[in-house]
Amino acid sequence: MHTLDSSGLRVLTREECLRLLSRAPIGRIVFTDRALPAVQPVTFRLDGDSVVIRTSPGSKLAAATRHAVVAFEADDFDVERRTGWSVTAVGRARAVRDPDEIARLSELPPAAWAPGERNHYIVVDMEQVTGREITRE
Amino acid sequence: MHTLDSSGLRVLTREECLRLLSRAPIGRIVFTDRALPAVQPVTFRLDGDSVVIRTSPGSKLAAATRHAVVAFEADDFDVERRTGWSVTAVGRARAVRDPDEIARLSELPPAAWAPGERNHYIVVDMEQVTGREITRE
Repeated sequence: MHTLDSSGLRVLTREECLRLLSRAPIGRIVFTDRALPAVQPVTFRLDGDSVVIRTSPGSKLAAATRHAVVAFEADDFDVERRTGWSVTAVGRARAVRDPDEIARLSELPPAAWAPGERNHYIVVDMEQVTGREITRE
Repeated sequence: MHTLDSSGLRVLTREECLRLLSRAPIGRIVFTDRALPAVQPVTFRLDGDSVVIRTSPGSKLAAATRHAVVAFEADDFDVERRTGWSVTAVGRARAVRDPDEIARLSELPPAAWAPGERNHYIVVDMEQVTGREITRE
């Protein structure tokens, strides 16, 4: 049995959402920048119920997401078949300050593609996690 | 000559951004839903300096974007090569009410994948358009 939303898309369970997120190489963090909606693609790692993003301490992303409630989205679509899924998580972002936590996170597989020093970690502790799938029967 | 941003990514010109958007099959609309950041993948068409999204009149997207300033993002990444681009536009969303405009937009190639009636058009008139590219030399 599948639950459909008002648009006819299949509603994914939290477990399905986390499994899809764990395999996605790229996501998008959604935040507010000077009172305007902003979105930035990032590489990330899932760490339990948290999304871990590695950035530089002086980045706009680091400044704008400090203590902010953000959304995090990942998706994958097959344009030919018109199928795919998307998962969105909402939670509070925090900069990691604890040296032990930084040491632990630095042992997660490297993910940053952009050049430059990336020793600043933003963690989004996911509260709501929702997802949809569009399939062809 | 290429302009680099503070993260070392190449800054795309507006013309490059519009060209990339014109070829992208999927984008993501970023808005606020009950005071929380929200993001939803959508198929879309570029219509001059506007992004046209087709949805159903009763959708959450239609309600939440009414007269709102939204962001619209599209990207494409090559995970193997660690290259890619992203473009973000910010502008005011409006529901199309004018029958002539609806008739004209309905002749744009069909784009909605989700089932159900999709006779409601949201247009985002892009004000800011910014983009970044990550390449390997």
